[in-house]
Amino acid sequence: MKRLSSLDDLAIFGARRLFATPRPIGQLDVPDPDTYLALLRTAFEARCLTGGDIVRTLEARLAERHRTRHCVAVANAGLGLMMLMRIFSRGRAGEIIMPGFTFRGLPHFARWAGLTPRYCDVRPDTHGLDPGEVEASVGPTTVAILAVCNANSPGDIDGLCAVAAAHGLPIFFDSVYGLAATYRGRPLGGYGQAEVFSLHATKLLNGFEGGYITTDDDGLAETLRRQRQFPPRAGCADPADAHPLGLNAMLNEMHGAMALCCLDGLGAVIERNRTRYRAYERVCAPLPGLDLLPYLDEGCEARNYCMAILSVDNSLPLSRDQVLGALRAEGCAINSYYSPPLHRTGSASLSLPVTDELAARFVQLPVGERVSLEDIARIGEVLSLLAARGEEIAARLDEAGQ
Amino acid sequence: MKRLSSLDDLAIFGARRLFATPRPIGQLDVPDPDTYLALLRTAFEARCLTGGDIVRTLEARLAERHRTRHCVAVANAGLGLMMLMRIFSRGRAGEIIMPGFTFRGLPHFARWAGLTPRYCDVRPDTHGLDPGEVEASVGPTTVAILAVCNANSPGDIDGLCAVAAAHGLPIFFDSVYGLAATYRGRPLGGYGQAEVFSLHATKLLNGFEGGYITTDDDGLAETLRRQRQFPPRAGCADPADAHPLGLNAMLNEMHGAMALCCLDGLGAVIERNRTRYRAYERVCAPLPGLDLLPYLDEGCEARNYCMAILSVDNSLPLSRDQVLGALRAEGCAINSYYSPPLHRTGSASLSLPVTDELAARFVQLPVGERVSLEDIARIGEVLSLLAARGEEIAARLDEAGQ
Repeated sequence: MKRLSSLDDLAIFGARRLFATPRPIGQLDVPDPDTYLALLRTAFEARCLTGGDIVRTLEARLAERHRTRHCVAVANAGLGLMMLMRIFSRGRAGEIIMPGFTFRGLPHFARWAGLTPRYCDVRPDTHGLDPGEVEASVGPTTVAILAVCNANSPGDIDGLCAVAAAHGLPIFFDSVYGLAATYRGRPLGGYGQAEVFSLHATKLLNGFEGGYITTDDDGLAETLRRQRQFPPRAGCADPADAHPLGLNAMLNEMHGAMALCCLDGLGAVIERNRTRYRAYERVCAPLPGLDLLPYLDEGCEARNYCMAILSVDNSLPLSRDQVLGALRAEGCAINSYYSPPLHRTGSASLSLPVTDELAARFVQLPVGERVSLEDIARIGEVLSLLAARGEEIAARLDEAGQ
Repeated sequence: MKRLSSLDDLAIFGARRLFATPRPIGQLDVPDPDTYLALLRTAFEARCLTGGDIVRTLEARLAERHRTRHCVAVANAGLGLMMLMRIFSRGRAGEIIMPGFTFRGLPHFARWAGLTPRYCDVRPDTHGLDPGEVEASVGPTTVAILAVCNANSPGDIDGLCAVAAAHGLPIFFDSVYGLAATYRGRPLGGYGQAEVFSLHATKLLNGFEGGYITTDDDGLAETLRRQRQFPPRAGCADPADAHPLGLNAMLNEMHGAMALCCLDGLGAVIERNRTRYRAYERVCAPLPGLDLLPYLDEGCEARNYCMAILSVDNSLPLSRDQVLGALRAEGCAINSYYSPPLHRTGSASLSLPVTDELAARFVQLPVGERVSLEDIARIGEVLSLLAARGEEIAARLDEAGQ
């Protein structure tokens, strides 16, 4: 096994990379194929590939877990967000408030729903929308507030709901990292008008692909169920009309079966995530300038440890992008985290200082079922070298024009 | 077995229905589960659930079959249509010309893409857009022409492409019923800027769900491939921007495996469809006022016989809806065909006489793998009774207020 002792042992300086097979950043949990294929066979035998018992069972189990009245499974979380945006806008053009520091897809989904994203600054600790900033962003054309519950913290949900209520605006949550996490002792899922979760293979619960919406609102659930199942026979697609635009966005039995199989192992998945996270903590603790992002309110709130985010401090002689580049060179299939921030990708100039500061700082470390504790130890060796000899590395990279 | 001799043998008049298990109108072809599950297992073993060899193989085989340079598989045909609309509009609001006589989903997909549908009349024979009517509908805000290739005929593709070219407008085709059909000796797939096909379980080729876009345009194919794979890291979602809006619309390996398995049996499926269609022809031939819609240019053009459409003539004392009701009562899980027409579902008043006439006339008969020749013979008995004793039936229905 490769042991790192000199700078020449780093892949950025020409050494063989640490991982021949890339180490990814997704959960990528896969159930026992035999169990999955057997369940799938029941769908074939029932000759029911969509709209069947498997997805209904999944919805019931998820609603129970989230303690909500409804769970509506959809083909993917992005479509779920588009559906909610369109329902809340009722075809009106307008602005939707969302954080500047979040997944790059959200403004795209807003545009699909006919809305204009209005980016808002976040809190430095939770990385979630700052209620004061949201208050200041509400305008005459605001249609809804889309808040994001991040992996490290669900954010100030009560503060945000209070602002929404004061203005009579719907608020809903992108909680795609929030399965099994709690806020004030209650599982995420029942906050605001609705919450959206993902079943993508990279997420905590793997449905190959897919997502679901949780809500306690009977009418909204009914509308979503109609909307996902092809455009309705009656009812027009007129923007002024109260009928929601239809979409083919059902989750079929294949996806449902996958998620159901993985659901049984969810507790064990979280336990393995926690073990990996603790290993990263031990690795990062002694390193100056490199910190592991903490899970807020750990202990009093449940967390799923699905991500390990490295924070690169300004005191390190290496930039965030240089750290990212060094790890990528070693075979880590990783990325920065919510960078560039969303308000920097459009044409409008907007000042979101916290977002800017956060977006420049983070690296996502490899996580999930394809990352072993041994892998983390090796990544730790690379990080140690970067922390201990940052100035030399920076100088050599500058020389090489990197 | 039930034999129909008197009106009291009809389910609308209280008799037990003909089919305890509903007879549907979709293809619902299912491959051998063992073959499918074995192929799916290879995806598990390769630990590649999306973006893998199975979908790539499917795309290559379909491109070859359609004789196009590209096939881009997507999560479903509706999303494929939305993607194309958004690419052609480049974020501009405007009108998209489409037939008034077609699938009720198309105006919904147009709205999702930020466009306003402009309904246009169709030809009485092909049921496709009338080039003269399209010419008259082109206006200053027209963004594109969406033509539909119907099961009975692909329509006047050359005439429509000429109008599009004369105005410099993109034209693309909803060809979800057009797999294995030809126009002027060439397979559908390569006409206009692009064509969209469906892999829904009810369609000729079953991928559980899914769709694909065929095109000979290298740039368009590249854009679609970027667009389906989550929103891009760089590039904003600004409407004025040339970057297309991103979407999570990939087809994953599970769907690809299903479609690949079914693709091998496609010839046999079409042969069975043809046999069923011929049986319906024999059943309908002697019936006054009830005709089976012919496949145009059969013999010189390939057709897939995926639908059997019954035309109810005004000379029959029963209305189309009464015929539909009588068959539904017998356990036929069927519908009218493109009714109500799209221009009647919006608020605008528009005169599309051919569309109106067609939309009042048709009933979709049960088709696909779950309909036997014996079933068709029994449906024929019902139709015979409706044709022979229409006046009496109408009188009894009127009495009962139906």
